[in-house]
Amino acid sequence: MSDTASGPDTTSPYVIVSSDTHAGLPCEEYRPYLDPGVLDAFDDYVAERHEHRRLAEETNAEFIARWESENAEGLRGGHDPEVRDKELDADGVAGEVIFADADAVTGQESPPFGAGLHAGQITDPVLAFAGARAHNRWLVDFCATNPVRRAGVALVPITHDIDRAVAEIEWLADKPGIRGIMIPTMWHGFPPYSSRHYDRVWAACQDAGLVVHTHSGEADFDAYGDNIAIYVNEVPFWTYRTLWHLLLSGTFDRFPGLRYAVVECGSWWVGDLLWKADVNFGASYKIKKLSAKVKGLLSRLPSEYVGTNVFIGASTMSREEIRRRHVNGIDALMWGTDYPHPEGSWPHTVERLTSDFRDVSVEDTRRLLGLNAVECYRMDLEGLSEIAARIGPTPADLHQDPDLRTPPDAVRKARWWFDEYGIPFPGEGGGER
Amino acid sequence: MSDTASGPDTTSPYVIVSSDTHAGLPCEEYRPYLDPGVLDAFDDYVAERHEHRRLAEETNAEFIARWESENAEGLRGGHDPEVRDKELDADGVAGEVIFADADAVTGQESPPFGAGLHAGQITDPVLAFAGARAHNRWLVDFCATNPVRRAGVALVPITHDIDRAVAEIEWLADKPGIRGIMIPTMWHGFPPYSSRHYDRVWAACQDAGLVVHTHSGEADFDAYGDNIAIYVNEVPFWTYRTLWHLLLSGTFDRFPGLRYAVVECGSWWVGDLLWKADVNFGASYKIKKLSAKVKGLLSRLPSEYVGTNVFIGASTMSREEIRRRHVNGIDALMWGTDYPHPEGSWPHTVERLTSDFRDVSVEDTRRLLGLNAVECYRMDLEGLSEIAARIGPTPADLHQDPDLRTPPDAVRKARWWFDEYGIPFPGEGGGER
Repeated sequence: MSDTASGPDTTSPYVIVSSDTHAGLPCEEYRPYLDPGVLDAFDDYVAERHEHRRLAEETNAEFIARWESENAEGLRGGHDPEVRDKELDADGVAGEVIFADADAVTGQESPPFGAGLHAGQITDPVLAFAGARAHNRWLVDFCATNPVRRAGVALVPITHDIDRAVAEIEWLADKPGIRGIMIPTMWHGFPPYSSRHYDRVWAACQDAGLVVHTHSGEADFDAYGDNIAIYVNEVPFWTYRTLWHLLLSGTFDRFPGLRYAVVECGSWWVGDLLWKADVNFGASYKIKKLSAKVKGLLSRLPSEYVGTNVFIGASTMSREEIRRRHVNGIDALMWGTDYPHPEGSWPHTVERLTSDFRDVSVEDTRRLLGLNAVECYRMDLEGLSEIAARIGPTPADLHQDPDLRTPPDAVRKARWWFDEYGIPFPGEGGGER
Repeated sequence: MSDTASGPDTTSPYVIVSSDTHAGLPCEEYRPYLDPGVLDAFDDYVAERHEHRRLAEETNAEFIARWESENAEGLRGGHDPEVRDKELDADGVAGEVIFADADAVTGQESPPFGAGLHAGQITDPVLAFAGARAHNRWLVDFCATNPVRRAGVALVPITHDIDRAVAEIEWLADKPGIRGIMIPTMWHGFPPYSSRHYDRVWAACQDAGLVVHTHSGEADFDAYGDNIAIYVNEVPFWTYRTLWHLLLSGTFDRFPGLRYAVVECGSWWVGDLLWKADVNFGASYKIKKLSAKVKGLLSRLPSEYVGTNVFIGASTMSREEIRRRHVNGIDALMWGTDYPHPEGSWPHTVERLTSDFRDVSVEDTRRLLGLNAVECYRMDLEGLSEIAARIGPTPADLHQDPDLRTPPDAVRKARWWFDEYGIPFPGEGGGER
């Protein structure tokens, strides 16, 4: 796949990288990966998981039965690499970024003690690390089955113990197919992620080339009771909150090689965040009380970190989010199927792409569907292209217009706040901030 | 001011109601309004306030000196009703919705114990109510100086004691010019505002016709250290969080006459919130896991409560927020000058309106600048119009085009998610939810 002198490549298959998939063992099968000292606690955990399934079945029986019977084979791919590759093939997906917790419906394929998407809820640091390491040991083996295709995201509960976190990151550094770590979504009583407390963690991730992630799941559960609507409405905040804690505290200036991705909380909110933050930093004289206080916190405008240090694992984007791609970050947004969860596009990804990307240029589509993820995770584009040549849908398959081009000033125009507030657009020169 | 058969009134002066102003005594002057039992604690508080000013002067001397000298007379209007009316006149503002804490720069005009914008930080319920009641006693007198013009928002720390909160609301109910209460922005360790725990408070406010408010100020201070940029970025969330806790828990179905306004955290976020919430409730079959769980929580779509039960005190709107008025709520958005704070449009409101409303129809401008607030606070439109006849800028003063009309389908078009998700637009019929 390559662009020609006459324009972008509009015929080769898309190299699709799903920036959001999940894998994990059925919970009891994590036993051999665990340290012996936590096995009693593990038995309690497994019993609790089965009770959790029983309760889920009580309230949502019909949906669970249909989902699990219609997708019985595909769901096995949550932990069976051969089945998984067949599912990815059928869905047109060449590469994938793998998070824990394969079963989002009844929570059976969950790392010990909830060390996956709910790691922040664990109070005992011994259990937090035992659960994370059990999953990581398994994940290393799992990714080794196809390290070109798989970018595994290991679990590191950095809030619980900095020394152990750094040791785990160093252990992960040279494992084939391990491309990132997921940290607890919320810091609870521990220092916030804007604190220098975590600098050794960020340094280790920068050195190891591992992308740091928060992934949606946890939220302020005490505030919701049984009101799922409030949870759904709030959970993005708790997930993307880490983005600005890292960015606005200058973390990416102290660690310029550090990359962070926020996953499965959409991307609709990005543009307004950048507008507000760019104005605070780039036109702060408008905020008369603040100008002295924000000066010098960052070396670039907040929006300039997006696509270099900050990436958005936007999962199965809505059409509105696709329309907002130039304001939100055409070089940062990453499609994801959420396989094997029911919220995403699996097993109908090509159908979904055909319906939603029809009015998008091929070059933009290439970025959103794969190239941004390849860049973020430093994946093997050549290896992935070989897979894509076999299974990837082409622009013609998605009924796209090969002559549609992205205007060169698309980002400039979409980010309207530069002109409106008189902030020099990056690369166009201008004064000191 | 009235529309004619041939179209809207495009010549009368605007009835401007600032939905966000502040008033309060210099802190030591609250002494005579306090219960005797808290006077020792009050002396400590006053000393702390003066130390606060000293520290503010240490870090931001230049701005403070300029602000206070250039606006010396106008700032006295923070507690002097005659000066205040002159300032409102000069700014073209007929009516105002008054919150506590007149001094946003060095915090001198702050109700005892921080019972104003930071009430949630008070841990002792005795002090919380003592401070609130001292301010309320003063505010009742202050609003009585001109009850047509002033809509006072009293302080009620509902988290600390439901019985005392209800008693205070009942005491406030018949006071001329008192139109609402402000509750602590954050509930901290108390039950969230989505809990039935507060139903007696909402019932009392409904009966008294008092609008419930959260106003920006408090946030998760422990998470910011001295990083003001993170605070500025997060504070809207902590302010508008109450909106969906009330709305999505069915509070406005249990109390259909209850009105709530969220103040000084902008309005840019409203459209996306409504998109997401309307889809969850109106097209929840798309969220396969959730459909059973959200059904029946509300009797209308979330966006339908905006403009009847939910109002947005958007303060000095940015031009982008003015452009988004039809998606965010043309019948809910309320301009505010933030007088006498430096963040707002005072003392240059007419200048600001002239620059920002040029492309807005007169009918939309009338709503945003005043009529929505008159509706929300049940203010005396006739009385306000008399004041406006003397001081209000006309559409011609704002260089507006009198022939510009709002298309009848402006809201329908702006709220794109109805068509995109196949949700019947309110009033156009359609199936059961």
